Amino acid sequence: MARLTLEETIANVQPLDTAAMDSARARQDTLTKPTGALGRLEDISVQLAGIYGQPTPLPKNKVVIVAAGDHGVVAEGVTAYPQEVTGQMVVNFIHGGAAINVLSRYTGARVIVVNAGIVVDLPDHHEIISLTIGKGTKNMAIGPAMTEEQARKSLEEGISIATDEIESGADLIAAGEMGIGNTTAASAITSIITKHSPLEVTGLGTGITEEQRTHKAKVIERTIALNKPDPNNGFDVLRKVGGFEIGVMAGVMLGTAASRRPVLLDGFISGAAALIACTLCPRIKDYFIACHFSVEPGHAAVLDYLGLKPILDLSMRLGEGTGAVLGMLIVESAARCLAEMATFAEAAVSGKAEA
Amino acid sequence: MARLTLEETIANVQPLDTAAMDSARARQDTLTKPTGALGRLEDISVQLAGIYGQPTPLPKNKVVIVAAGDHGVVAEGVTAYPQEVTGQMVVNFIHGGAAINVLSRYTGARVIVVNAGIVVDLPDHHEIISLTIGKGTKNMAIGPAMTEEQARKSLEEGISIATDEIESGADLIAAGEMGIGNTTAASAITSIITKHSPLEVTGLGTGITEEQRTHKAKVIERTIALNKPDPNNGFDVLRKVGGFEIGVMAGVMLGTAASRRPVLLDGFISGAAALIACTLCPRIKDYFIACHFSVEPGHAAVLDYLGLKPILDLSMRLGEGTGAVLGMLIVESAARCLAEMATFAEAAVSGKAEA
Repeated sequence: MARLTLEETIANVQPLDTAAMDSARARQDTLTKPTGALGRLEDISVQLAGIYGQPTPLPKNKVVIVAAGDHGVVAEGVTAYPQEVTGQMVVNFIHGGAAINVLSRYTGARVIVVNAGIVVDLPDHHEIISLTIGKGTKNMAIGPAMTEEQARKSLEEGISIATDEIESGADLIAAGEMGIGNTTAASAITSIITKHSPLEVTGLGTGITEEQRTHKAKVIERTIALNKPDPNNGFDVLRKVGGFEIGVMAGVMLGTAASRRPVLLDGFISGAAALIACTLCPRIKDYFIACHFSVEPGHAAVLDYLGLKPILDLSMRLGEGTGAVLGMLIVESAARCLAEMATFAEAAVSGKAEA
Repeated sequence: MARLTLEETIANVQPLDTAAMDSARARQDTLTKPTGALGRLEDISVQLAGIYGQPTPLPKNKVVIVAAGDHGVVAEGVTAYPQEVTGQMVVNFIHGGAAINVLSRYTGARVIVVNAGIVVDLPDHHEIISLTIGKGTKNMAIGPAMTEEQARKSLEEGISIATDEIESGADLIAAGEMGIGNTTAASAITSIITKHSPLEVTGLGTGITEEQRTHKAKVIERTIALNKPDPNNGFDVLRKVGGFEIGVMAGVMLGTAASRRPVLLDGFISGAAALIACTLCPRIKDYFIACHFSVEPGHAAVLDYLGLKPILDLSMRLGEGTGAVLGMLIVESAARCLAEMATFAEAAVSGKAEA
């Protein structure tokens, strides 16, 4: 399939179809329920209409693209789990034992596992898409996490994966991730773009102590002072303090929006990738549906910056795409109500009495 | 099937199985994710273990029992829609056009439609369970809404319906409703039992004006002053200010808990039924799972009184069981994660580094 460049993809992200949105909103007001009684389901359905460019879209083919990558910054002692866990979890994804597998089986989403650049060698497996960007990023506390070529490649590989899946029929796409150390990268990205201090947007990750959290924030502070990323340039931010899986996720988001599909956001890491995508292409914001509100404190800053209110708040902090896959259930429900409910006229139900 | 009395059913509601809960919690801590990273999914899974009395329960057979009833208090001008809508919506339920039908098809729940006492004559239909309690309640603003016999019958019919469904294999049960005027009854019940003023727990229902809301609260105030229900006696509250569908819902809840199944709560009307059930049988509280936070202001008072935090907050205010059916998706997801995720040992994933 034709591979699009980053620039071509950004140019393909179009404004929402306001005629389809008006039509969807008008239909909502004729359905057998009090006006507005389905709350956010109605709002989501109207957004979907604008994204797909159809008055009653019915997405069905769900995919979660789980990208894994390792982070050089683990050398600074910022994580609770050893780096080998990234690769071990990829094997767990392939064997179907992780939370994302269980939830995807339940919701009917396919899991696409992407090795975006992990340190250990993985067994060859037909279900792993193996990218050749690098074996983990460099330690961003002593220099840029990756080269310009690596940053571009991670984004464009993400674009290709999303585009291929959509060409094969996927119409509801989320990006998930795994990567020991990636909350450190996500906190750095969030601090730079949203202009909160590192400490404000740094959390406990997979379970470090409060003392380790202070250390983690100091590492991020030092990293930013050293690398001086340009907060208005998501590409520069990705290169200096990002991760390969975060670049792939941002690419998946851009590719998804460019193909007129909603971009389902997961938790904090996904939110950091969304910040990068949004800096590169502000119009993508209209395609975002925030699925879950993470326990990680930086996620609130991300959502606030993007102006998003998540669908679910289940105190999860796992990533992998778990929140997005649960959110798909609500998104599909919203689309079904718009498309399948009877109107007052069809059901011969009396309308509201005149006040 | 043997019909249980209200008293027998209450006696059958047992404490949760703490051994099963301990086992579920211990298993959660061995699964391939950071401890606690699935947040509320973990808590729900542990509660389910305690309810079913099994360490890894997997509910599958979902049922929503939608009870419809009319309310004499509509004579006071408290509603936005005319009373005939209750019966028209029951027909819509049977034809599959309402939101509850669409969402139930999506989630795989069966919809059981119960005519708990509506004013208009309905066409005979094999899918409607028609009860013979009465044709709508009396106007509670001028006397008790129903007789003692009617209150008992509504509760015991609800118990029977739930028990029959569970004997036929249902293991995840919610009660929904339809009834023009029933937010007025629910606000009255909530005011009496939670001891908030009528105005504090009275909302806009299906869409009245602010002025009509004040009027609605005054009607409730007058109703309570006239009938003097005993706040500690749910039976007396139901009889004086309840509704037939609310009695059936409270009965469904009691029958469900007595059969060791979780009680999935919907929105505000469901919450009012839960208050009645809880007053009759305080132990039922452990079986409640609040699925959705309604826009109706009285619902916050209900949840606060019951000590519950809803799973979803989607700004819905429709009832019918819509919030509960969406909540079933999260409850099932929670159960699946507990039962199906790999442990660290099974997946050969390294544990947390020593701090």
